[in-house]
Amino acid sequence: MKIAYLGLGIMGSGMVGNLLQAGHSVTVWNRTPDRCTPLVEKGATQANTPAQAVANAEIVMYCLSNEEAIADTVFGEDGILSGVHQGQIAIDMSTVHPNTSRREAVAYAEKGVEFIDAPVFGSKNESATGGLWIVVGGKKEVFEKVKPILEPLSETIHYMGETGMGATMKLVGNAVVISQIEALGEAMILAKKAGLNPQDVLDVLHVTDFKSPIFDGMGSTLVKRDFSTSFALKWLLKDANLIAQLAQDNNSPIPAIALARETVKAAVNHGWGEENASAAIKALELQAGIEIK
Amino acid sequence: MKIAYLGLGIMGSGMVGNLLQAGHSVTVWNRTPDRCTPLVEKGATQANTPAQAVANAEIVMYCLSNEEAIADTVFGEDGILSGVHQGQIAIDMSTVHPNTSRREAVAYAEKGVEFIDAPVFGSKNESATGGLWIVVGGKKEVFEKVKPILEPLSETIHYMGETGMGATMKLVGNAVVISQIEALGEAMILAKKAGLNPQDVLDVLHVTDFKSPIFDGMGSTLVKRDFSTSFALKWLLKDANLIAQLAQDNNSPIPAIALARETVKAAVNHGWGEENASAAIKALELQAGIEIK
Amino acid sequence: MKIAYLGLGIMGSGMVGNLLQAGHSVTVWNRTPDRCTPLVEKGATQANTPAQAVANAEIVMYCLSNEEAIADTVFGEDGILSGVHQGQIAIDMSTVHPNTSRREAVAYAEKGVEFIDAPVFGSKNESATGGLWIVVGGKKEVFEKVKPILEPLSETIHYMGETGMGATMKLVGNAVVISQIEALGEAMILAKKAGLNPQDVLDVLHVTDFKSPIFDGMGSTLVKRDFSTSFALKWLLKDANLIAQLAQDNNSPIPAIALARETVKAAVNHGWGEENASAAIKALELQAGIEIK
Amino acid sequence: MKIAYLGLGIMGSGMVGNLLQAGHSVTVWNRTPDRCTPLVEKGATQANTPAQAVANAEIVMYCLSNEEAIADTVFGEDGILSGVHQGQIAIDMSTVHPNTSRREAVAYAEKGVEFIDAPVFGSKNESATGGLWIVVGGKKEVFEKVKPILEPLSETIHYMGETGMGATMKLVGNAVVISQIEALGEAMILAKKAGLNPQDVLDVLHVTDFKSPIFDGMGSTLVKRDFSTSFALKWLLKDANLIAQLAQDNNSPIPAIALARETVKAAVNHGWGEENASAAIKALELQAGIEIK
Repeated sequence: MKIAYLGLGIMGSGMVGNLLQAGHSVTVWNRTPDRCTPLVEKGATQANTPAQAVANAEIVMYCLSNEEAIADTVFGEDGILSGVHQGQIAIDMSTVHPNTSRREAVAYAEKGVEFIDAPVFGSKNESATGGLWIVVGGKKEVFEKVKPILEPLSETIHYMGETGMGATMKLVGNAVVISQIEALGEAMILAKKAGLNPQDVLDVLHVTDFKSPIFDGMGSTLVKRDFSTSFALKWLLKDANLIAQLAQDNNSPIPAIALARETVKAAVNHGWGEENASAAIKALELQAGIEIK
Repeated sequence: MKIAYLGLGIMGSGMVGNLLQAGHSVTVWNRTPDRCTPLVEKGATQANTPAQAVANAEIVMYCLSNEEAIADTVFGEDGILSGVHQGQIAIDMSTVHPNTSRREAVAYAEKGVEFIDAPVFGSKNESATGGLWIVVGGKKEVFEKVKPILEPLSETIHYMGETGMGATMKLVGNAVVISQIEALGEAMILAKKAGLNPQDVLDVLHVTDFKSPIFDGMGSTLVKRDFSTSFALKWLLKDANLIAQLAQDNNSPIPAIALARETVKAAVNHGWGEENASAAIKALELQAGIEIK
Repeated sequence: MKIAYLGLGIMGSGMVGNLLQAGHSVTVWNRTPDRCTPLVEKGATQANTPAQAVANAEIVMYCLSNEEAIADTVFGEDGILSGVHQGQIAIDMSTVHPNTSRREAVAYAEKGVEFIDAPVFGSKNESATGGLWIVVGGKKEVFEKVKPILEPLSETIHYMGETGMGATMKLVGNAVVISQIEALGEAMILAKKAGLNPQDVLDVLHVTDFKSPIFDGMGSTLVKRDFSTSFALKWLLKDANLIAQLAQDNNSPIPAIALARETVKAAVNHGWGEENASAAIKALELQAGIEIK
Repeated sequence: MKIAYLGLGIMGSGMVGNLLQAGHSVTVWNRTPDRCTPLVEKGATQANTPAQAVANAEIVMYCLSNEEAIADTVFGEDGILSGVHQGQIAIDMSTVHPNTSRREAVAYAEKGVEFIDAPVFGSKNESATGGLWIVVGGKKEVFEKVKPILEPLSETIHYMGETGMGATMKLVGNAVVISQIEALGEAMILAKKAGLNPQDVLDVLHVTDFKSPIFDGMGSTLVKRDFSTSFALKWLLKDANLIAQLAQDNNSPIPAIALARETVKAAVNHGWGEENASAAIKALELQAGIEIK
C-alpha cells in the first residue's frame, strides 16, 4: 500500500520502520526534516509538506505530539486536509481529546476521506518491535479495511466503537498509568521510610497478583536513578490535562487521578518534563525529603 | 514436623490443607470451633485452647484477622504465649502493624521461642492452591529453618529483613492494592460516562504494559455485579487503617493512598464490608451516579 | 454618566439598580429581554442588541455568565465590539479566565476602547445592596477614571495590577470558597457521625478565630435543608473548572482544591447544579450516608 | 476557689494568669518545674507532683500536650488520679481523642470525682487575654458549677453534650483549621504563580464574605517569612492524627482533611514542627518550587 506517515517522534519512527519492513511504500514528513533521514535510508520517501506527503497516498497515518501539532499539521496551511482527496483513509494515532478526533472526522468527511482514531499504548520499545496495543474508534468497516496495516505494528488491536472512542480509551488507560505512578511513588517512599530496601520491595511487587509491568519499568528507574526517557514526563502531563478535561466534560469525579495530576504538574514545574515519566515521583520524594534508592 | 495452626479463616484453612498434604502433623484451633471440622476430617487434631494447641508443637503458626485477635489469641488467657516453651518457633502470618510483630518477638524471646513475621499476599485461591506470596521478617537463620514448611504454601517467599519487615512489606503491598482499586474504579466510571463499554475497557487493560491481575479480578466483579467475597472489604479497610498508622509513624506523606482509604471507609460505612474488596468502587459509583456494567 | 450594562442575572440586575440610584443614565440589554423590564421601570433604557446598547455609552459594563456568553455578547454578531467606538471604556465584571480578559483588552484596543477586568465577590445580597468586593486589573489610570462608577456598587475595590489580574484574583478567591465548602461539609459530617448536633457546631464555628461568614451562610442552608439559590452550584463548577485551568496554565499544584472540584462535579452530576453552591455538600453526604441536620 | 492547674505551656500559663487575676487560689505543677516560676511570682503555689498539686483543690484543671502526657500526669505514678478525692471536679482542657475523655470520666467517677472535657480554641494571645473559646462535654449540672471559673478565661463557652463532646468539637474545629491552612497555601501559591502580589491577595481575602481571621494571621507569617510560634506545627500534626483517628472510628470520609494532614506530615518531616502551624505551607511551597512573599 502507499502510505503517508507524518510525525516521526519516538513512536512514529518505530512504526514507519515496521511499515517499511511489512513491504509498504511509505512517504514521510516531519516538522524537523532531519528525523526523516534514517527512514529514507531504509527506503522511505521524504515529503516537504504534509499536503505533499499525502497527495498520492492510499492511507494517511500520523502520530503527533499534541493538539497544537494537530491544528498545524492537519488543519494548517499546507496541512494534511489541504492535500487529501476522495477515497483515502486517515488514521490519527496521536493521543488527543476525543473531540479533536470528532472534529477531524467531520473535516475529512467533507473531503470524502474516511477517518479512524487509533492511538496506541506502549512506548519506545513497543513501537520499535511492533508490540504496540492499538485502540480504535470509527466506522467498523473502515477499521476492517486498515486492520492489516496496523497488525505489523501491534500486539493487539481493540475496536472500541464510534469515532473518538479510541481516543477516549487511550485517555482512560493513561489515567490508570498516572495512578500507578503515584501509587508506586507513595508506596516506595513509605517502604523506605519504614526500613525496607527499595529493590527488595520491587522484587515483591514483581510477583504478586497486583503486579504490573509498569512497576518493574518505573521502579527500576527509581532505584537506578536513571530517568532517561522512554516516555517523557511532559507528555504524561499533557495526557493528565486531557484526562482532566475529559472528566470535566463528562462530570465524572476522578479524585485520585486528579491528585496524581497535581504531582505530575509539580514535577514538570521543577524542570523534569524532559525526563522519564517516573520522574513524577521525584516530586513526591521532594516532599518526603528522601530518595528511593 | 509437628505444627500448631491457629486461625482458620479463608486463609488459614487453605494453608492447613496444604500443610497436611505436605505430610505435617497439624493441631488446629479456631475461635469458632466448627471451622476445625473439615480439617480434622483431613487428619488434623483439634485443640480446645490456643495454649493447648501449641503445647506439643515444634512450629506455631497463625493467621488471625486483626490486632484484637492477636491480643486475645497470642497474649490473652490460655493464649499461645501461656502454652509455648523453649525451642519452638512461632510464625505470625497475619496482617498486622510491624510494632505488633515486634511486641510478639519480645514476648516470645522471654519464653525462649523464636519468632518471624510472615504475612502473605494472595487470597482464597492462592491459599487453597499453595500459591501465596510470603514476605518474611525476623532473624535470617530462623527464617532458613522454617522455609521448607512455608514452601508448599507459596509460590514465592521473600526475606525482607529484621522482625517487622515482613509486616511492613505486607502493608506497603496492600497500599498498592488500595490504590489500584481506586484507580480502576475512577477509570471505569470515566470510561462508562465517556461512552465506552466497561468489558471492552477491561479487555484493553488486560493486555497493556500497565495491566495487572488485580484489574482482571476486580474488574470482573464490577461488570458481573458479583461482589461475593474472596477478600472482604472490611479487611481492606482494616489494612488501610494500618497503612495510615504506619505512614503516620514514619511521617511519610501518602496523599493518594489516604484518599483511597476514604473511599474504602465510605463503602464500609454503606454496609458493604462483608462483600468483596472491589465493593469499594460502589462508593465511587454512588458519587458518580452510575453503575459500571 | 451614560452607561451601557449588559447581562442582567442576579448580579447584573443588582448592580444596575445601584447605578440608576447613583444617578447614571443606563441602557440595558439581556439575552432574555424580559429581565430588562423591572429595570426599565426604574428608569433604564432597553436596547435590542449589545451593539445598540453600547452605541451611545461612555462606559460599557457587563457581567456575563461564562466564556460562551463573552464569545457571543462581546465578540459575536451585533456584539459589543461591533458597536463600540474610540474613547469608551469597557468593564468586564464577569468571572472568566484572565486570558479571556487579555483577549478582550486587545480587541478593544484595536477599536480605541480602554478596558479593565473588574470581577466581583459577593452574591445576591451584596449585589443588591451595593456591598460587593471588586477586584480590578488593567491600566491604573483607566481604573482611576471608572472608580467613582464602581464605588456605589461596592464595599471595597482592590486594584490588583495589569489586565487579567482582576480575573486572576477572582479565581484565586473562589478557590478558597470551594475549599471552604468542602471543609465545612467534611467537618459537619464528621461532627454529626461523632455525635454532635450540627447547629451547635455551626454556633461554635461562628465565634472562633477560624470563623468565616461563608460557614454561617452555607451552614445554615445545610441544617435548614434549604438550598434555594443565592449563588448556583453550576457557577461554582464553572469557576472550579476555570481555576483548574489557571493552575494548569501556571503548573501550580492545587491538590485539595482539585479534590474539592471533584465534589462539586459529583453534585452537579446528580442534578443539583441549579441549587445553592452549598449543595456540593450533598455529594459528600451521599458518600457518607447521612444528612447534616 | 482553690484550683489546681497542671501543664504550663503557652495555653496553661495564660489561663493560670487569668485565674489568679480572678482571685482564685491556684496551685500549679509542670513537668519542667521552672515554668512555674513566673506564676509563683504572681501568687501561685508550686507543687512537686500532680498528686500533691490536686490534694487540697476544689477544682482540678489541666491542659496537657498529648495523650502520652495524659497517661503520665493523670493515670501515672503520683498522677492526678492518685491524689484526688470525693467531691472534686476535674476539667481536662487538653486536645485529646474523646475516648480519652471518656476513660478519664470513668476513672474519676471511681474516685467520686466529677469530670468535664473542656478543650479550648485560640492560641497564645487568646489564652493570655482571656479570649479563648471553650467547648464543653460532660454532665450539664457539673458544667454549670464550673462555668464561673471558665468565664474569665474565655470569650465564649459552648456546652456540646455528654462526656467527650467537647473533645469531639475541638477536633472537628481543628479539622476546619487544617483545611483552611491547606487552602490558603494552595491559593497563595497559585496567586503568586499567576502574577499577583501575595500581600494584595491577603488584603482582598481580608474583606470578602469568605474571609477568616486565620487567613490574616497565617497569611501574615507567609509574606513576612516569620514562622515564630503561636501554635506549633507539631501540635497541628498531633491534632490531624487525632482527627484521622476520630474519622476512622466513625467511618466518616474526610478526603480533603486527610489530604491536608499529608501536607502537615510532610512539613513536620522536613523539621519544621517547632515552627508556627502555617509552616505547613512550606511543604506546598517546596513542591511548587516558590516562596510566597
